[in-house]
Amino acid sequence: MAETQLQHAREGTVTSAMERVAERENVDPEFVREQVAEGQAVIPANHHHDALDAMIIGREFSTKVNANIGASETTSDLEEELEKLHTAVHYGADTVMDLSTGGGDLDRIRQANIDHSPVPVGTVPLYEARRQVDDVADLSHELLLDVIEKQAEQGVDYMTIHAGILMEHLPKTDGRKTGIVSRGGSIMAQWMEERGMQNPLYAKFEEICDIFAEHDVTFSLGDSLRPGSLADAGDEAQYAELDTLGELTQVAWDYGVQVMVEGPGHVPMDMVAEQVERQQRVCDGAPFYVLGPLVTDIAPGYDHITSAIGAAIAAQAGAAMLCYVTPKEHLGLPEREDVRDGLASYRIAAHAADVGQGQPGARDWDDALSEARYNFDWRRQFDLALDPERAQAYHDQTLPGDNYKDARFCSMCGVEFCSMRIDQDARDAGDMDELDDETDLDASPAAETNVPPVGTHEEADVPDQSEYIDLGDRVHADDD
Amino acid sequence: MAETQLQHAREGTVTSAMERVAERENVDPEFVREQVAEGQAVIPANHHHDALDAMIIGREFSTKVNANIGASETTSDLEEELEKLHTAVHYGADTVMDLSTGGGDLDRIRQANIDHSPVPVGTVPLYEARRQVDDVADLSHELLLDVIEKQAEQGVDYMTIHAGILMEHLPKTDGRKTGIVSRGGSIMAQWMEERGMQNPLYAKFEEICDIFAEHDVTFSLGDSLRPGSLADAGDEAQYAELDTLGELTQVAWDYGVQVMVEGPGHVPMDMVAEQVERQQRVCDGAPFYVLGPLVTDIAPGYDHITSAIGAAIAAQAGAAMLCYVTPKEHLGLPEREDVRDGLASYRIAAHAADVGQGQPGARDWDDALSEARYNFDWRRQFDLALDPERAQAYHDQTLPGDNYKDARFCSMCGVEFCSMRIDQDARDAGDMDELDDETDLDASPAAETNVPPVGTHEEADVPDQSEYIDLGDRVHADDD
Repeated sequence: MAETQLQHAREGTVTSAMERVAERENVDPEFVREQVAEGQAVIPANHHHDALDAMIIGREFSTKVNANIGASETTSDLEEELEKLHTAVHYGADTVMDLSTGGGDLDRIRQANIDHSPVPVGTVPLYEARRQVDDVADLSHELLLDVIEKQAEQGVDYMTIHAGILMEHLPKTDGRKTGIVSRGGSIMAQWMEERGMQNPLYAKFEEICDIFAEHDVTFSLGDSLRPGSLADAGDEAQYAELDTLGELTQVAWDYGVQVMVEGPGHVPMDMVAEQVERQQRVCDGAPFYVLGPLVTDIAPGYDHITSAIGAAIAAQAGAAMLCYVTPKEHLGLPEREDVRDGLASYRIAAHAADVGQGQPGARDWDDALSEARYNFDWRRQFDLALDPERAQAYHDQTLPGDNYKDARFCSMCGVEFCSMRIDQDARDAGDMDELDDETDLDASPAAETNVPPVGTHEEADVPDQSEYIDLGDRVHADDD
Repeated sequence: MAETQLQHAREGTVTSAMERVAERENVDPEFVREQVAEGQAVIPANHHHDALDAMIIGREFSTKVNANIGASETTSDLEEELEKLHTAVHYGADTVMDLSTGGGDLDRIRQANIDHSPVPVGTVPLYEARRQVDDVADLSHELLLDVIEKQAEQGVDYMTIHAGILMEHLPKTDGRKTGIVSRGGSIMAQWMEERGMQNPLYAKFEEICDIFAEHDVTFSLGDSLRPGSLADAGDEAQYAELDTLGELTQVAWDYGVQVMVEGPGHVPMDMVAEQVERQQRVCDGAPFYVLGPLVTDIAPGYDHITSAIGAAIAAQAGAAMLCYVTPKEHLGLPEREDVRDGLASYRIAAHAADVGQGQPGARDWDDALSEARYNFDWRRQFDLALDPERAQAYHDQTLPGDNYKDARFCSMCGVEFCSMRIDQDARDAGDMDELDDETDLDASPAAETNVPPVGTHEEADVPDQSEYIDLGDRVHADDD
């Protein structure tokens, strides 16, 4: 019996998730089915994730952005974690990864996230397994499978599985400047060093496939050997693991399981496109889910920007989803404003690439905002902005009055030197035509999608803060 | 008699400015001379700018960043303007443009900037001319030449001259979504509309060349018809003006005057590289000085990021200098923190492109920082960071204590899940080698340059705030 979107697609069935995705992307449902059937796109949709509004990740669709959330060793409570979910969805995350590593009851937090998230929830089950043992070497094959199965039953839509790093790859990292920078990868490497055995996630990969097929969990094949510095980009270690990920992609497909593949990291600008092309070739077009990449190592405090440059180029070259990086990367735990800045940077990268690739309707959003700008319709300009609150706050900092909301200038150039005001006056006076064509967003292929032309994503299904508290109480009660 | 760097270079003379530039860029002085002689690079160095530390702009050299400063209608005093200069140089501007349009004595402010700036100072003389007449149509050929000559005598190193926009181009803008968005361009267009005559800066271009040759002012040929939205990018109007800029480049070269050419603006990602290549072809390799470009119109409040993506791609494709954009672009006047964010974004774009192009020594900075990161040497990591203050502030927000400055983790992942800590422990315990190679920055080709490996630029010649006050008094006194 077909259990996964991939299996349904291969059998020629257009599922309700595919219908929904087609609607959101403004494409034909049959096209969605074909892309899923061929493994060129995934619809992460665990059978048990009832709150999910289905979405698709693939190079032929709009570029998606993931935000990482989760409890760390120092933060813990459920309310705070649901607030993070709310923030991520509010600022436009297309998926979230619950990367909780400590503090509080991780099962409860994960279940609450799944119960309330309209976007797919991803996890790294290795983190939970690691927390259950004193020493890395104590991790057993059984424990890893148990944790994976439990999370699959909870409704996790996709999981990062660090199965691609093998014993024979480890010596290839000896000459590296920054060693192994994937958390899961470093844990697997240490395990292999101490136990002298092959990677258990690789050894048990087919059993994991069975679990994933049953619940329709999508693989996110972890890139344990991604470069953590420009110096290490594209080295033998990275590409040896990529070859293994290509093999594992085929195995997962044989089991009817959906797959995406994770990518770097830190990569010089001139290598970004070739890295995407290589992954697409080695992994037969399985969607590429990249972290950045950062195109320089020199700017801690600004890595949302160093990496948005790389992410835009990667998306333009065919990456399907971008994992965001916040300004606090390499330095500390992000806070709410960091999440906001990180998501804005990545939605910019994703949208710029969609426009650059000519995704149907993508540019309508730009056109509508530019028209509002040229018409000095400040309110519409704010409404259409990626981050309406910030756009208005910056404008109102110098010209707060209501009377400035249709003023034919802003404080940047002042009235006398506003080029658009001068330009329009010249057109009124002379031969140049006054323009008043309007992009009709309702008629645009982008209408009704999850991206343009709104400033924020749909968040109706995410509880607001007062609801969190009730939820917290309820989940507490359930636990008793 | 040779008056300009271009004329000297053609005669085979290596000037002291070329020597200095060669030292800063770690190249052979003869190479600098060749590049200047062929018009492929410019050394903006007005004879009267004594405080200048010579620098070079050209595609074969490190990518440069310009910051705009200047008084607007609402801000005015000299002290504040010199503070802006200080901020721009402190955060790494390679040149500054004094775009003052109002408020206060613009001559005095310009002179003070030139007297104190170690970096080239650019201006748009049309702005000052515009302020001297009630109506745009009152601008006369004589007034324009007078203002240009006076600024040349003051020591301005390069000037934006909007000579490329012609009467015959104006109808080509009729179908545009955002008309003419260059301030100078909109003024010239209005003038031509109202007077029914050809652009006076075009008509008098050879007289401007005479003035520039005498003082060695470098042309920055303005792109009056640059696109102000993605929709208008690469249209007939933009490229018609570019053809004129190509012709004017030849005229300036005939007069022995150095030239760079300004570029857009708002350009979709897929068109950025081809726009650079087209300018290089049409203008015979004259350095391209680009504003952004913004790769999407949707994100007012984040246009330092939308444009840093385009700027990095443009620099990688051969643009020589990037004019920064701050988060306040399109919304209001930037403040100090906006200048900081804008410059950081653009120095990232410039450096990423230098690394991507394989500029000699560029990546040494990245390598040194990555080594400090892997060694958990937090202090050295902060010192090497593009913005040391911000890097440390973000880190110390959660782990402020001195004891955390050599801690083998930060609050992002915590000690238990720090990949680099785990990786190193595994190497210590097992077969994986511990790495301790260090990039020797002193031996690097990048040593002693104006870019890496420092966190901030040389600012010794820029007065600090207390000096401004004295200076303000002195310049006041001189005026009496």
